[in-house]
Amino acid sequence: MKMLINTPETVVADALRGMAAAHPDLVVDVERRLVVRRDAPGPGRVGLVSGGGSGHEPLHGGFVGYGMLSAACPGEVFTSPVPQQMVEAAAAVDGGRGVLFVVKNYTGDVLNFEMAAELAEEDGIRVERVLVDDDVAVVDSLYTAGRRGTGATLFVEKIAGAAAEEGAPLERVAALARKVNESSRSFGVALTACTTPAKGSPTFELPEGEMELGIGIHGEPGRERRPVVPAREIAELAVEAVLAELPPGPVLALVNGMGATPLLELYGFNAEVRRVLEARGVPVARSLVGNYVTSLDMAGCSLTLCRVDEELLGLWDAPVQTAALRWGR
Amino acid sequence: MKMLINTPETVVADALRGMAAAHPDLVVDVERRLVVRRDAPGPGRVGLVSGGGSGHEPLHGGFVGYGMLSAACPGEVFTSPVPQQMVEAAAAVDGGRGVLFVVKNYTGDVLNFEMAAELAEEDGIRVERVLVDDDVAVVDSLYTAGRRGTGATLFVEKIAGAAAEEGAPLERVAALARKVNESSRSFGVALTACTTPAKGSPTFELPEGEMELGIGIHGEPGRERRPVVPAREIAELAVEAVLAELPPGPVLALVNGMGATPLLELYGFNAEVRRVLEARGVPVARSLVGNYVTSLDMAGCSLTLCRVDEELLGLWDAPVQTAALRWGR
Repeated sequence: MKMLINTPETVVADALRGMAAAHPDLVVDVERRLVVRRDAPGPGRVGLVSGGGSGHEPLHGGFVGYGMLSAACPGEVFTSPVPQQMVEAAAAVDGGRGVLFVVKNYTGDVLNFEMAAELAEEDGIRVERVLVDDDVAVVDSLYTAGRRGTGATLFVEKIAGAAAEEGAPLERVAALARKVNESSRSFGVALTACTTPAKGSPTFELPEGEMELGIGIHGEPGRERRPVVPAREIAELAVEAVLAELPPGPVLALVNGMGATPLLELYGFNAEVRRVLEARGVPVARSLVGNYVTSLDMAGCSLTLCRVDEELLGLWDAPVQTAALRWGR
Repeated sequence: MKMLINTPETVVADALRGMAAAHPDLVVDVERRLVVRRDAPGPGRVGLVSGGGSGHEPLHGGFVGYGMLSAACPGEVFTSPVPQQMVEAAAAVDGGRGVLFVVKNYTGDVLNFEMAAELAEEDGIRVERVLVDDDVAVVDSLYTAGRRGTGATLFVEKIAGAAAEEGAPLERVAALARKVNESSRSFGVALTACTTPAKGSPTFELPEGEMELGIGIHGEPGRERRPVVPAREIAELAVEAVLAELPPGPVLALVNGMGATPLLELYGFNAEVRRVLEARGVPVARSLVGNYVTSLDMAGCSLTLCRVDEELLGLWDAPVQTAALRWGR
C-alpha cells in the first residue's frame, strides 16, 4: 500500500511538525507529543484534555482551540498515548479550576487516562474523567469492554469545551460531557479496510462488492458483512441502529467520513440520512458533514446522532475556533 | 470499485440535496444545479461565480458564502456545467455592480463560461472573466490548452471574494483575481488513480509502488511516473517545480489532499514542504492543509504556492464564512 510518508516510525512526529507549521495559534510539542492552546492555562477556565491513538485526524489535535479542547495527546497510530503525556497536558492547561479528561472507551486509553488522573491528582490537579462509548454496533470488541467510543467524541468535546469557555466549574463541565455521551449513539459502515503505516497492508480483508456493517474506527469487526447496497439502504440501516437506542426528539447529526470516501458521497449519504430521519419524525437541529473521526485510509462513513435540548444546542452553537471546527467568532 | 452512492446518474443531485440539508445558510437549487448565498444579491457587492465539474468537493459549492463565492455551478462529475446554469447564477447574484466568473482552464469550462458571459451581457449584466491556470506540470493536457487550473482556484476565490465583500468595483475584483492567478503555481502527485461513478473502475493504471508526478485533478497524465519515494523527496520535487515559476518572496502555501490521503499524511507532507521552503529562504506567510480541491477518491496531494504582498495577505486574512473555509468572523 502506497503512502505519503517518510517512514512508519516517524509518521506521528512528522505530522506534528506539519501541524506546528500550519497552526501558529497552537503549541505543538513534537518531543513530548502534545498539542496545546497557546493561551493555556486559561484564567478561571477548566482545562479540557483528550487524546488517543493517531490515525483519526482531525481528532483530537484538530479540535484544540477556543471553545473546545485545551490540549490533545496523540499516541502512535491506533495506540493509546502514555500517562506521562496526559499528566503533562493536565499541568499545561490547569489554571486552578481542574481538568476534565475525555476518554474514548478503548482498554489502553481507559487504563492510561486512569493512571494519569491519579498522577495529576498527586500533583495537586483536580481531575474528572468522562468515558465516551457511543457506538451501538457491538458490545465488547477487539480493544474494548463495552461499547466503543467514536463520533460522539466530537459532540462531547465541542459542548463541554463551550461550557468550559463560559467559565463553568469542573463538576458542571463533566456533567455536561456525560450527558452528551449518554445522549449520543453512532453506527459505522466500511467499504474498505484501512492500512496502518507499520503493517503496510490492509488490517482485514473486505472483498470487492462487500461492506462491513458496524465497523469500528480501527477496523474492528462490526455486526455483519453484506453485499454493498445503495446509499439509501445503508442510511436506513444506520439510522435504524442509532435510533433504536436514543429517546425521541431533536438531534445533532454528524455524517462522518472514515477518510477515503469523497465529500461528494458523504453529502449524498447525508441526503438519505435526512430523508429517513424526516420519515421517522426526528427533527435535525444541526447537521455536520465531513471527515472528523477518521480511520486512516478507510472508505466508508459513520452516523452519530446526539439528542439535544435547548441547553446542549446553545453550547453546540457557541463560538469555536480550532483547526477542524470553526464558527461564530 | 465500491461507492457510497445510490446510482451514478443521481450522484450530483443526491450530493446537492445533502448539501441543502447540511447548510441552511445556502440556497441549493437541486433542479437548476446552483448553490447560492442566501443573502444574494448583495447590496453594492460584485457577484463572484465559479463552477466546474463535480468530484472536486469542497470546490466550488463549499466556498460559497460570506467573503468568498456568491454562487457555484456544479456540473456532472468531471464535466463542465452548462451555460444556462452560469447565466442563472449571474442573474441570482448581480446586484447591479456586475459579476466575475472564475474559470478553471479546461476547454469545456472555458467555452461554456464564455457563452454564458455573452448571454448574461445580453440580459444587461456586466461580466468579467478570469482564467485560473496555475498547474506547472504540463503545457496542454487531456482537457486543456495551456496550463490546467487547480489549487490556485481556492486562493483566487478567497482573495477576490474578500475584495468583493469590501465593496470593490468589478474591474478591481477582476484585477485582483488575475494577480492572484499570476502569482500562484501548483504541482500535484498521485499515488492512486481516481474512479468516476459512471466508469466504476480507475481512470488509469498506476501500479503498486509507483507514483505519477504532475497529475491533473481529473487523473490527466503528468510529467512522469516513478517509484514511490519518501515524502521528503516528493516535497523537494514539488517545491522545486513550483518555485521554478514563481518570483522570490513570501507565499501562501496550500498542501491539498486529492481525497483519499489521510490528514495525518498531509500534515507530515506539510512539514517537509516547510523544511524545503525554509532551506530556500522562502517565508511562508500562511499555511493551509487539508482536502480542498480533490479528485474523488484519488490518493495523493498537490502543493500550491501564491506569492503575496501586504495587500493580498490582508485580503486572505479577511473574514470568510463558507462550508469549507471559515475564519475571523
